[in-house]
This record gives sequence, structure tokens and C-alpha cells, in this order.
Amino acid sequence: MLMIGWTTVATMPQAETLAAGLIESRLAACVQIEGPITSFYSWEGRTERSEEFRISIKFIATRESDIEKWLLTHHPYKTPEWITVRTENVSEKYLSWVKANTYN
Amino acid sequence: MLMIGWTTVATMPQAETLAAGLIESRLAACVQIEGPITSFYSWEGRTERSEEFRISIKFIATRESDIEKWLLTHHPYKTPEWITVRTENVSEKYLSWVKANTYN
Amino acid sequence: MLMIGWTTVATMPQAETLAAGLIESRLAACVQIEGPITSFYSWEGRTERSEEFRISIKFIATRESDIEKWLLTHHPYKTPEWITVRTENVSEKYLSWVKANTYN
Repeated sequence: MLMIGWTTVATMPQAETLAAGLIESRLAACVQIEGPITSFYSWEGRTERSEEFRISIKFIATRESDIEKWLLTHHPYKTPEWITVRTENVSEKYLSWVKANTYN
Repeated sequence: MLMIGWTTVATMPQAETLAAGLIESRLAACVQIEGPITSFYSWEGRTERSEEFRISIKFIATRESDIEKWLLTHHPYKTPEWITVRTENVSEKYLSWVKANTYN
Repeated sequence: MLMIGWTTVATMPQAETLAAGLIESRLAACVQIEGPITSFYSWEGRTERSEEFRISIKFIATRESDIEKWLLTHHPYKTPEWITVRTENVSEKYLSWVKANTYN
């Protein structure tokens, strides 16, 4: 089954490094970078605002814990966002392509 | 459990007002604004096209109805988009940070 | 039940054609285009990078196979991304609007 995971980083070069690393390690078949986005969040009791880049990662569910480990090791933040959702339906040819291009 | 919810507004200042309000009320720990995006939709039988900004809201499932009520009160549209999905996995430290920064 | 589906194309005009077509055929009530985004993927053993536009499609679950068929026919790629997720909650008025503006 295919999963989508999201994380964010502060700069485009950081996003590109993570995206290329995930493809080269064959943990993900397709990684997309979007942004800049504007993030609002609480930090030490104050509302903070930052520009960030969001990374969307498509991967096979059996690689979930490997991807999380890889990301927590390579991510520049101490407490990065890492959230995944389960997909409901994926077109057959696209799923075959993902499986052919990742370890699974 | 963590949820992701999405809504859209017409302008960046409207998006910033909602984002900051959700953080300050401690209903959400992290709100992101992306755009401008281009929306196509049916309105009174015609295909319309507008520039909009999308707001992504991460929140704890127990706050689902509070967030919806807050948004329907503060949102500038009469029929705003409000759609949520359930997450499958969230990294432990990130989830702890969300819980520490919201009512739950 | 409401679903969200995602696909990507290479150019904004391609994205606009698909978005308008989905609305005009009443398969979807709201289609959003975001980007450009930067996609990283494996192609014939190499890591490739492209600018793309992402299309987000909101539709009623009973139309899932019709939308997939329509997209695979009209999409400019041979192996397009087509991924859907199930929503958990949708505000009542928004869902009524979607149902009033699509075949379902």
C-alpha cells in the first residue's frame, strides 16, 4: 500500500538534499517540494511565523519505519514534522512504477 | 490522534488572521499557508476560477468539533471548504510538541 | 463520502485544461492547482528533477472509478500520478455544495 508523508525544512537547498537522498536510497520513488509556505506555530509560549518548504514523499507502507529513521537522522531540525497518511486508491501503472523504483 | 484539516481563503491577510487565531487559541499547534493557488469550481451553473490561499491545520482529534466551530465563526466565506483527514503515523517528538502546545 | 485525489502535470495550461474539464463534466466540484512544485523521481535508474504543477481534486467516493478513467484518458502523461485519500470529516454546508454540483 502507498503512503504519503510530509515534512518541512527552512530552505530550498535543505529540501533538495533530503529529496535527492530519499530517491537515491530507493526509500521513496517520488518526492515533491512546494513552497515557500508560511508556517505559524507556538514556540516557548509565543506565536512564531517562518517561511518553510514542504516535502511530500510517496512510499510503500513496508518502508514506513525505514523512512522515518532516515529522515530523523538527516533532517536539519531537532523536532521535525513527520506525518503520514494512508492512501485509498492509486492507479495501477503508477503503483507499479513506484514498486519498481523502491525497495519493498 | 493527529488530524490534518484544510480550508481556503481569498487573500493572504485573511489566511494570516485565521492562522494566528488558531495558534493563539491553542486549538492547533501548527498552521501553514500555501499559495496563491488557482481554484476551479462550479458556481450557479458556471465554471469559475479564483486565486486563493490554502491553510493546512494540524490538530488533535479531540479538538475536531471545536476547530470546526471556530473556523465557521471566523472564516470570511459563507460556505468555506473544511475537510479533514486522519493521519496514520506521526513521529513521537513532533506529536509530543503538538500536545504540549494545544488544549487536548 | 468525500475523497481528495492528486495528480501532477508539466505545465500550467495542462493543469487548467484538466481542472476545467473535471468541473465541466461534473465529476468534481472543486479542483485546485498549486505550483510550480519541484519533483524528484527515479527514471531509468537515474534521479531526475522536474518542475510540475499539482492538481487537487475533491469528489464524491461513488465517482472514484469514473474520475480515474477520465483522467487516464485526458492526462498528457503515460504513467500519471493518481492517488486518493479518504476524508474523515467535511463541514455540512460544504459537502452539500459538492453534492449539488456533481453527479453522485
